[in-house]
Amino acid sequence: MTTFPQTPSFTGFNTPSRVEADVNDLNVEGAVPREIDGAFYRVQPEHQFPPKLGDDIAFNGDGLISMFRIKDGKIAFKQRWAKTDKWKLENEAGKALFGAYRNPLTDDPSVKGQIRGTANTNAYIHGGRLYALKEDSPALVMDPVSLETDGYTNFDGKMKGETFTAHPKTDPATGNMCGFGYASKGVLTNDMTYYEVSPAGDLLFDIWFETPYYCMMHDFAITEDYAVFSVAPITSSWERLEKGLPHFGFDTKQPTYMAVVPRKAGTTAEDIRWFKGENCFTAHVINAYQEGSKVFLDLPVAENNFFPFFPDIDGAPFNPDQAKTYITRWSVDMSQNSEDYQTQRLSDMIFEFPKVDDRFTGQKYRYSWGVVIDPEKPVELKGGSAGGFVMNTLGMYDHETGKEQKYWVGPVSSIQEPCFIPRSKDAVEGDGWIVMVCNRLEDHSSDLLLFDALNIENGPIASANIPVRLRFGLHGNWASAADLTVLEQAA
Amino acid sequence: MTTFPQTPSFTGFNTPSRVEADVNDLNVEGAVPREIDGAFYRVQPEHQFPPKLGDDIAFNGDGLISMFRIKDGKIAFKQRWAKTDKWKLENEAGKALFGAYRNPLTDDPSVKGQIRGTANTNAYIHGGRLYALKEDSPALVMDPVSLETDGYTNFDGKMKGETFTAHPKTDPATGNMCGFGYASKGVLTNDMTYYEVSPAGDLLFDIWFETPYYCMMHDFAITEDYAVFSVAPITSSWERLEKGLPHFGFDTKQPTYMAVVPRKAGTTAEDIRWFKGENCFTAHVINAYQEGSKVFLDLPVAENNFFPFFPDIDGAPFNPDQAKTYITRWSVDMSQNSEDYQTQRLSDMIFEFPKVDDRFTGQKYRYSWGVVIDPEKPVELKGGSAGGFVMNTLGMYDHETGKEQKYWVGPVSSIQEPCFIPRSKDAVEGDGWIVMVCNRLEDHSSDLLLFDALNIENGPIASANIPVRLRFGLHGNWASAADLTVLEQAA
Repeated sequence: MTTFPQTPSFTGFNTPSRVEADVNDLNVEGAVPREIDGAFYRVQPEHQFPPKLGDDIAFNGDGLISMFRIKDGKIAFKQRWAKTDKWKLENEAGKALFGAYRNPLTDDPSVKGQIRGTANTNAYIHGGRLYALKEDSPALVMDPVSLETDGYTNFDGKMKGETFTAHPKTDPATGNMCGFGYASKGVLTNDMTYYEVSPAGDLLFDIWFETPYYCMMHDFAITEDYAVFSVAPITSSWERLEKGLPHFGFDTKQPTYMAVVPRKAGTTAEDIRWFKGENCFTAHVINAYQEGSKVFLDLPVAENNFFPFFPDIDGAPFNPDQAKTYITRWSVDMSQNSEDYQTQRLSDMIFEFPKVDDRFTGQKYRYSWGVVIDPEKPVELKGGSAGGFVMNTLGMYDHETGKEQKYWVGPVSSIQEPCFIPRSKDAVEGDGWIVMVCNRLEDHSSDLLLFDALNIENGPIASANIPVRLRFGLHGNWASAADLTVLEQAA
Repeated sequence: MTTFPQTPSFTGFNTPSRVEADVNDLNVEGAVPREIDGAFYRVQPEHQFPPKLGDDIAFNGDGLISMFRIKDGKIAFKQRWAKTDKWKLENEAGKALFGAYRNPLTDDPSVKGQIRGTANTNAYIHGGRLYALKEDSPALVMDPVSLETDGYTNFDGKMKGETFTAHPKTDPATGNMCGFGYASKGVLTNDMTYYEVSPAGDLLFDIWFETPYYCMMHDFAITEDYAVFSVAPITSSWERLEKGLPHFGFDTKQPTYMAVVPRKAGTTAEDIRWFKGENCFTAHVINAYQEGSKVFLDLPVAENNFFPFFPDIDGAPFNPDQAKTYITRWSVDMSQNSEDYQTQRLSDMIFEFPKVDDRFTGQKYRYSWGVVIDPEKPVELKGGSAGGFVMNTLGMYDHETGKEQKYWVGPVSSIQEPCFIPRSKDAVEGDGWIVMVCNRLEDHSSDLLLFDALNIENGPIASANIPVRLRFGLHGNWASAADLTVLEQAA
């Protein structure tokens, strides 16, 4: 029998959902602009079965992919499991076989050596393919129309590393999907890889190098010439896994690094520059770009650990105040010999899940959107805590003027990563819409919200009620019908 | 764009859902008995599109069929549209084309002459086929495993009438599905038909006759030798339809009838006996049986109109107190010449949506289960009214001892028709379980509840959380895996 534990991870608004669903035509309040033609993909971690070890963290759930197809002023909803090797093995067994997050020592012996990926972190479109991504595993390929799973890809054998990031970036200049792997030679290894994949799906070249220490390399940025990494000490060790501790722990004793990797075939580890900085927390990036010899990397940065479930390795208690992430600019000058990066806080909004107008990835850009935690806005949940924090506000930052915009979704709602939809291929930066899932925590219902991207503070221009309760979600992406011709062919 | 009206029929816990869904394995509290192997089917009316006329009643929604497959202590959930001709035409158009309930005068001219059925009243299994049923139209055939729609059937041309009841009965002695039609020669006609269909799907014979007046012939009963009908004056006329009034209205000036129709080929209208009674309201039946020359028909009966949305034809206001339905026995003696039926109230529970152990259909039986409205139990809904009443209690009546059992599901929940699952093919009457959908009105979530059928007052032995919010539902049925070998073949 299938009974989930009565723990905060699986009760209240974290109650398991696990539903594959289709709604032809969501009920909409407001008006969906008829110019919008494409699909918004997002993923939520969702345990297929009760956790093997009695309880678990959301980050270890199986990937459940949602697609919102927007066309002719209507929105269709489709949701399907990302059927990873893990999902299939467990589905066959009728129960969980894999144990703790990133700890193969806790697995059932029957699945030793199997790919542990959950494909629960990002739903990414490139070259007409849908990739369901988890950074500890290869990319899982899915059909972008039916959401049926094809399986893991190693790009025709050309990807030699074991992992592919959940945060690839598509270079608008070349159309290449830029990605990387870490723990590329196996769990806890310091080995990293950088890859570029053409729109046709060819892996064009790889670069191998090592990190100064093993850590969560969750995201990165590109510029015209470089791949840019932030290295922060969310670390691990075999000792931790053997003790059954959470895979990651935060090490306040280590420095951080900004790594600048030339984006070209033939680059070796010697060509990479590692700029050092003070201990701090980073995970996601906003964007990066070059100006002359300078390289700028914008990212949310916190003074200390952001993840309560990946605790301080020396036992310091979690400090919510120090966990607040602010938009910060790291910069280096490649013409200089400095071994340090410079840092500057740009805004006082508590800001995470950043997104830009993707057409400006790797280029000088103006707007960032993200999830803001506004401590002045109340959270009123009858059923107790919201599991740490409620992301209750959509935020926008204008890098040109420094102006901020915010929109609060109310005391019993939580939003997820926003995504930008350009008005047209050639529209100016920011001219378009923001699409975003908003969970109504007490109703166990969810809405898809659409905003005028440059006027988010006016509130949504359209709200579509999703009759399936969505859960805490991670990342998503927009694909225009023109980018994804299969959408048109299926229409 | 698709925007539903902000009316009570489409807001609050009546918010449109319209979702096709699959959950492999529902999250269960308690224990699902491992002996249970089969599927529970039920249907809810659910408008595919906002109503053509601005607002509508639930009875005019499109059929959305749910299947709960129970096996090995697990419960899988699947929900699909019953794709009627109406559903397909409207889906193609992207909007409603058909107007008011049972009023073709309100339709778009483009659909004139099309079958108006919504298949929203019952999901019935017979001979390995799933029938989605609405009494104004032929039976819609669906696949009982995939829930894909095959389409309407006229039983190889043998069904000459235009309609097939939503409440067929399967005779446990012969295995035949006994059914009928009314308005058999078209909208508002007095013509009725009686049919029997063999387990192989052959329509064996038909009987044609007329009702004393046109009215809603919603349900009926069988005994070994007879089909038994209650005729109550839920009437209509072309004048009503031309005026745009609700199809049905209640006429307190007309008598009621109990009709006894011999169940055999060659029966003519002259062979039918019509026993008269006082004006009252009836719709569903519980069961009927013969003892010697006597025929007993048990059914919920109210003093006056039960449907507020089908108002008194003479303008009398709806009277909730007189709308209460009580288990009542009508009886006649076929050896006597009396023109009247006898009536006796058996219980003081307000009781509707009756069900019996189907193995005793048409036979002397002991137990009835149904939905009880317990006026002593509070309803506490923050969002205003529950649209008239909330069905908050599961009830059981023991016809042998007169004992009653009740189980209240709480102040913010509403239940739907219970269904009996026998422990085994040969178990004694009532030895088994009750399965029932329970909507949690404020959470916008639903549970499937399982009870020990003879101890419902102890509360559910298992509760499965359905992550999709179900809506007000109508009727459903159980099919054991043995009865439905396709279930086994698909496993």
